[in-house]
Amino acid sequence: MALEITIERSAQLKQKPDENKLGFGQYYTDHMFILEYTEGKGWHSGRVVPYQNISLDPAAKVFHYGQTVFEGMKAYRTEDGIKLFRPKKNFERLNKSNARLSIPHLDEELAYEGLIKLLDVDREWVPSAEGTSLYIRPFIIATEPALGVNPSLNYLFMIIMSPVGAYYAEGVNPVKIHVESHFVRAVAGGVGEAKTAGNYAAGLNAQEEAKDRGYSQVLWLDGVHRKYIEEVGSMNVFFKINGVVVTPQLNGSILNGITRNSVITLLKHWDVPVEERRISIDELIEAHRNGQLEEAFGTGTAAVISPIGELSYNDEKYVINEGKTGELSSKIYDTITGIQKGTVEDPFGWLVSLD
Amino acid sequence: MALEITIERSAQLKQKPDENKLGFGQYYTDHMFILEYTEGKGWHSGRVVPYQNISLDPAAKVFHYGQTVFEGMKAYRTEDGIKLFRPKKNFERLNKSNARLSIPHLDEELAYEGLIKLLDVDREWVPSAEGTSLYIRPFIIATEPALGVNPSLNYLFMIIMSPVGAYYAEGVNPVKIHVESHFVRAVAGGVGEAKTAGNYAAGLNAQEEAKDRGYSQVLWLDGVHRKYIEEVGSMNVFFKINGVVVTPQLNGSILNGITRNSVITLLKHWDVPVEERRISIDELIEAHRNGQLEEAFGTGTAAVISPIGELSYNDEKYVINEGKTGELSSKIYDTITGIQKGTVEDPFGWLVSLD
Repeated sequence: MALEITIERSAQLKQKPDENKLGFGQYYTDHMFILEYTEGKGWHSGRVVPYQNISLDPAAKVFHYGQTVFEGMKAYRTEDGIKLFRPKKNFERLNKSNARLSIPHLDEELAYEGLIKLLDVDREWVPSAEGTSLYIRPFIIATEPALGVNPSLNYLFMIIMSPVGAYYAEGVNPVKIHVESHFVRAVAGGVGEAKTAGNYAAGLNAQEEAKDRGYSQVLWLDGVHRKYIEEVGSMNVFFKINGVVVTPQLNGSILNGITRNSVITLLKHWDVPVEERRISIDELIEAHRNGQLEEAFGTGTAAVISPIGELSYNDEKYVINEGKTGELSSKIYDTITGIQKGTVEDPFGWLVSLD
Repeated sequence: MALEITIERSAQLKQKPDENKLGFGQYYTDHMFILEYTEGKGWHSGRVVPYQNISLDPAAKVFHYGQTVFEGMKAYRTEDGIKLFRPKKNFERLNKSNARLSIPHLDEELAYEGLIKLLDVDREWVPSAEGTSLYIRPFIIATEPALGVNPSLNYLFMIIMSPVGAYYAEGVNPVKIHVESHFVRAVAGGVGEAKTAGNYAAGLNAQEEAKDRGYSQVLWLDGVHRKYIEEVGSMNVFFKINGVVVTPQLNGSILNGITRNSVITLLKHWDVPVEERRISIDELIEAHRNGQLEEAFGTGTAAVISPIGELSYNDEKYVINEGKTGELSSKIYDTITGIQKGTVEDPFGWLVSLD
């Protein structure tokens, strides 16, 4: 297969932001990757170009029918060069999302090659300050200008990159979470397992309400019984109950998180009992009452591990581990971020070198 | 309130398409309406401009998190000038969708004024051939270039217009519908009632599968019990059972259709019994077995009335009214399209004149 990716370098490079004030997704690098899909021709014209606005017909299907998918991953600057964390998993998952959204299959090797070329061109953008990284956002949008409700004939696959700050400016800090009993994020038979725009739009109302009440995020319950735990915000969620780590099983309505998978792999490697199964909010409350809910945390690319210090459900509050980060949560966080920064041994071959 | 809407006319007008070959949503008029929202400033800079591509940062939130809403309505050319059908209902509903999607409230009067100015500039685009109309698509997209998952600080409200052909080229024709038992469109607590992109993206897979099996569309069942009727494709649905017309009640997961409302109003006006309530697929099948399922039809802006001639459910086929358009379905279709074209009396004041 011929991978013909052209590179057009920006004539004027941007000034790089202060590495200590990066925040999340606020700054973008000098270049981006584009690949086009045209019905009958397939994916074509892969190219690295200067970061720039894209010009779309206002009738483009992405604006009306939400036919779009995305991924999130990171590159890290280590003493041994620039590294990616399990990047091929992201392109595998992108194609699973594509299938659910009726978007044509993407050549994963070509997409990966595009990422590597883009990263090479913008390698100076990978920050080095403690806790920083380069967030990578591959995404696909439907571009055909036609208002009929059916799959687009044309698409754009793009990769943009953003240097991001330490998720925890002052060290890992537990958050307060509201258990959402009115709004529903996704349901079996829907698109909850796909990384697609609509899932995130659906969660905004609940998230805003939770923030207004002083909570960082919501814990989503399933849409059918309104009692089984699904996700926390846009992260997967884990609970340590009486020595056993429990996380909701992949049921079609939750995201198949790569960090989730890494955490499970790590726990098994450490011989910590871990179960992927249905877990109800009632079981959680009961475990809390019995003093067995020892730790709780979300997992995702942005935060890696986000400890949960308090749950609010039906007007009652349940403090977990005295509102402090649990021992196991800390150990998982330190290990995964250590592997990512190259300071902890990587027995699983998760790190991939850019060069 | 100052409605300052500027008009920039296109220097070169497009050639208008053949009115007999319009299709749906394939051609766009010479102009479009734009209104911008900036955090802290509100909605501003309303303007009619030449139809053109829009330029967006690839990090714009609409591409990633689907924060977008839309509407669909039509303008008709009648002997008495150009008419709109219940247009203010659309802007009312747009604001309900906005609330669900955490998009700022839109001044409905300003949006309506924008539409009227746009229609006036592009009035020659309202087609006159039998069954044709000018389809109007108001929509809002989140434009802030930031990857954090929270509501956008900036938005664009736009109106684009497309001359569309007769939905039924050879007269009203019943369609075959597949009752979907695997995929789910929306669930209570989700965004099903909002006219937002994600709902349409979620339906593509099922629609493609149905088409492959020879069906026009799917009949959606609820996501909780998987047995209560929700919608057909992207239309509301009605059944005439033993002389009574039944349609699913507004339950939060189905669209509050304006054509649906018009049909109910018309039936009450005619003293035809009509019920808005839960209706299960089992009740429907049972009614069919007893010979009481007399008619079935979808309702929506595009088709107005789309008769259903056959349902397929769990590998069985149920032919309705011998696969022909029912008497009541025809009467409703003729009345609403007659009111829209100004050939049938409009006792409800649904028609609004452009001039």
